[in-house]
Amino acid sequence: MKSRRSFLKKAVAGATLAGLLPFAKTSRAGEVKITGALIHHVFFWLKEPANKVHKKQLVEALQELLKVETIRMSHIGFPAGTESRDVVDHSYSVSYMVMFDDQAGQDAYQVDPIHLEFVEKNQHLWSKVVVYDSLDTPLS
Amino acid sequence: MKSRRSFLKKAVAGATLAGLLPFAKTSRAGEVKITGALIHHVFFWLKEPANKVHKKQLVEALQELLKVETIRMSHIGFPAGTESRDVVDHSYSVSYMVMFDDQAGQDAYQVDPIHLEFVEKNQHLWSKVVVYDSLDTPLS
Repeated sequence: MKSRRSFLKKAVAGATLAGLLPFAKTSRAGEVKITGALIHHVFFWLKEPANKVHKKQLVEALQELLKVETIRMSHIGFPAGTESRDVVDHSYSVSYMVMFDDQAGQDAYQVDPIHLEFVEKNQHLWSKVVVYDSLDTPLS
Repeated sequence: MKSRRSFLKKAVAGATLAGLLPFAKTSRAGEVKITGALIHHVFFWLKEPANKVHKKQLVEALQELLKVETIRMSHIGFPAGTESRDVVDHSYSVSYMVMFDDQAGQDAYQVDPIHLEFVEKNQHLWSKVVVYDSLDTPLS
């Protein structure tokens, strides 16, 4: 594991220092600070959390959803086996994190036909959705 | 805005295609898929949300917290002015998203002296914290 981490560290630092990731700044080797981005993080609670067919359908649909042009970075995930503490919510089924350049990118995504089709075809699968939109510049 | 976006698009695609971001795959130009990472996303609700001194203290403390060695990427943010929909939670004060290579990275972070000091010195500022840990490999 150590060598893999060390490799990642050098690679990310290299990409940043080379100016290839202009929205990311290195505060120390290996740590990339993302600025000038809107993070759109969505958590889905499936109606039937144990139904693997439903989970697979949702994940595949989310992968298709990444075709929306304004998405810059993405991560599709599941609850990690981290320590159960009061503040940690492990109850969701699927995590979907995408980044846009700005709010206009997110707004365009909301009305993109690919997104509208995703909602229409898959909304019967979930009982609850929570969305957090975060910009690194405060509104006030 | 268009030229800036176009620039970001090319830059991210370039870094990825050049193999400089080995944990990110390009599914199309401009969209970077992050895999092999644990996302640790924390939302803070300040006891006094309108208190700018408190917000500043928390943000500066979070910036210091990024010194923990196992952090790979980070984004510190605030509620965006995106559309108010039932599913969107704009009520938090500060968003803190960090990425680790794996669960071991997150576990090490939890007990890192920098993290313990952060909690001790700042926990009086918030009334509520919600944490989501997401891995791109499902546990089961």
